[in-house]
Amino acid sequence: MKTAIYGYGNLGRGIESAVQQNDDIELVGVFTRRDPATVKTVTGVPVYMAENILAFKDQIDVLVICGGSATDLPEMTPVLARNFNVVDSFDTHAKIPEHFAAVDAAAKESGHLALISAGWDPGMFSLNRLYASSILPEGADYTFWGRGVSQGHSDAIRRIEGVLDARQYTVPVQSALDAVRAGKNPELTTREKHLRECYVVAEEGADLARIENEIKTMPNYFADYDTTVTFITAEEMKANHAELPHGGSVIRTGKTGINKEHTHVIEYSLKLDSNPEFTGSALAAFARAVCKKHARGESGCITVFDIAPADLSPLSDEELRSHML
Amino acid sequence: MKTAIYGYGNLGRGIESAVQQNDDIELVGVFTRRDPATVKTVTGVPVYMAENILAFKDQIDVLVICGGSATDLPEMTPVLARNFNVVDSFDTHAKIPEHFAAVDAAAKESGHLALISAGWDPGMFSLNRLYASSILPEGADYTFWGRGVSQGHSDAIRRIEGVLDARQYTVPVQSALDAVRAGKNPELTTREKHLRECYVVAEEGADLARIENEIKTMPNYFADYDTTVTFITAEEMKANHAELPHGGSVIRTGKTGINKEHTHVIEYSLKLDSNPEFTGSALAAFARAVCKKHARGESGCITVFDIAPADLSPLSDEELRSHML
Repeated sequence: MKTAIYGYGNLGRGIESAVQQNDDIELVGVFTRRDPATVKTVTGVPVYMAENILAFKDQIDVLVICGGSATDLPEMTPVLARNFNVVDSFDTHAKIPEHFAAVDAAAKESGHLALISAGWDPGMFSLNRLYASSILPEGADYTFWGRGVSQGHSDAIRRIEGVLDARQYTVPVQSALDAVRAGKNPELTTREKHLRECYVVAEEGADLARIENEIKTMPNYFADYDTTVTFITAEEMKANHAELPHGGSVIRTGKTGINKEHTHVIEYSLKLDSNPEFTGSALAAFARAVCKKHARGESGCITVFDIAPADLSPLSDEELRSHML
Repeated sequence: MKTAIYGYGNLGRGIESAVQQNDDIELVGVFTRRDPATVKTVTGVPVYMAENILAFKDQIDVLVICGGSATDLPEMTPVLARNFNVVDSFDTHAKIPEHFAAVDAAAKESGHLALISAGWDPGMFSLNRLYASSILPEGADYTFWGRGVSQGHSDAIRRIEGVLDARQYTVPVQSALDAVRAGKNPELTTREKHLRECYVVAEEGADLARIENEIKTMPNYFADYDTTVTFITAEEMKANHAELPHGGSVIRTGKTGINKEHTHVIEYSLKLDSNPEFTGSALAAFARAVCKKHARGESGCITVFDIAPADLSPLSDEELRSHML
């Protein structure tokens, strides 16, 4: 199975690293909108100009598109699905139906298969919400994120005047997690579920009180949360905050029994040292499934909900039944 | 969707209870090898003789077979798959390929669809082993069970001379769980993973030391474990050990990165107040998937690995994409 990466940032490198661990996946190349001469891949895989990708039409079984959900993917995925089987990690939850429709039309017309919104959330967390709610129809869902770096929130802080660098950690509130895990079925506000920890490198002489206030009152990003702001040096940032860990838990609690006398707790949790490498590893497995399904004649747009788990594995059905069931 | 239960013990009652929570599933009846006059269902659903089930061929979309894996299911599932779409929870892991082959032949010949080995282990735990190993190819798998009642181990104790009743709890060793969750990738012996706690009601005047010794030295069941035996009264048994809780965790730890510098921990865990009711709830969702797939023309034997998650849900694809992804 031959794959290629379209867009080479943290996620692109994560996929490049994942492909090394999968003998059945070959990485044909990386496609970038930058000047290829300025891009050096970690494993030495060749870099090509994004605009020339059609020349590789017959050499790529599935293309993994690594763009931003805000503006890149809504444009890229439908266009690329006209010529390739594709996978993206579109994560603007509210706009998924719209994105699905655009990609579905393009992929159906050309006979390609496109998987959108793969990764861990959306992706593995979505799958666990679906499995758990199908098994326990009478229950409640909780999703906690972190402790991990939110790149969107870090970027939002960096846009504040006087800020040189920033790292924001989303942290689940332990008492909320404990109450959910105990099956207490609490109603939780945004503030009660997560804290936001910010580490900020400020320009020399910057007004730290103003920066802290601008962060804590920023609508959508921070205003609804208990937020801490810690000013650190550029050296401390490099030494202590260079990694991109993340994770979280999807929990469903539900009742069964004629009198609803029994409580059950289903929890799926991730502790990830590297968010982009884990996401890349998930996308590699999902790309395999797209190839298998396209080879069976499927086309159009799909999500992780439409993929039988066996299609994610390099093992045969017989091996899976013997060793994993 | 019309279903029926074949075999009415704890699991059959669990399914009966689950069906109450699913508006799209109707329970046609319970089929038993006992005299139907002696069987009273919890919800008043009618009870029929197992041998008359063929008369209901056109009224049952999917039959859930609740028999033991040792002798019942290897015989029942292939026979019933000649006339019905079926679901079973066959859990003798080593004999799954053999059972699959027998059921597949019967179901293919008659054009029915048969799902074997559904539930939580095999079932949801298997799915999580498959998802996690597909995402993290370089890693290690761990399955811990408990704290929960093992009915097989409880039965084994009850067969000892002088024992009136017994309840055995399988308990994961906390230090082993902690080491795995910390990504330490330990090699664990059977003894290091689980403890076995036994509560025993003995006959008056029975030789308690002999009973305790017979339990602790029983091959396969107890000899390889640290086992505790506590003698209790019949009243204590009834008051404190009447429920059938269970659960456990499937954990995969793996490395990513060009130099394998990042560790990831994926954990799926269940805390179940009632093992049979949770298993029954899972079987109800899997039975729904069997109906959907058969309606699309599929036949033969499948496992949980072959089911796209969307098929488990009563929601439409559009609803799932809007609310669960």
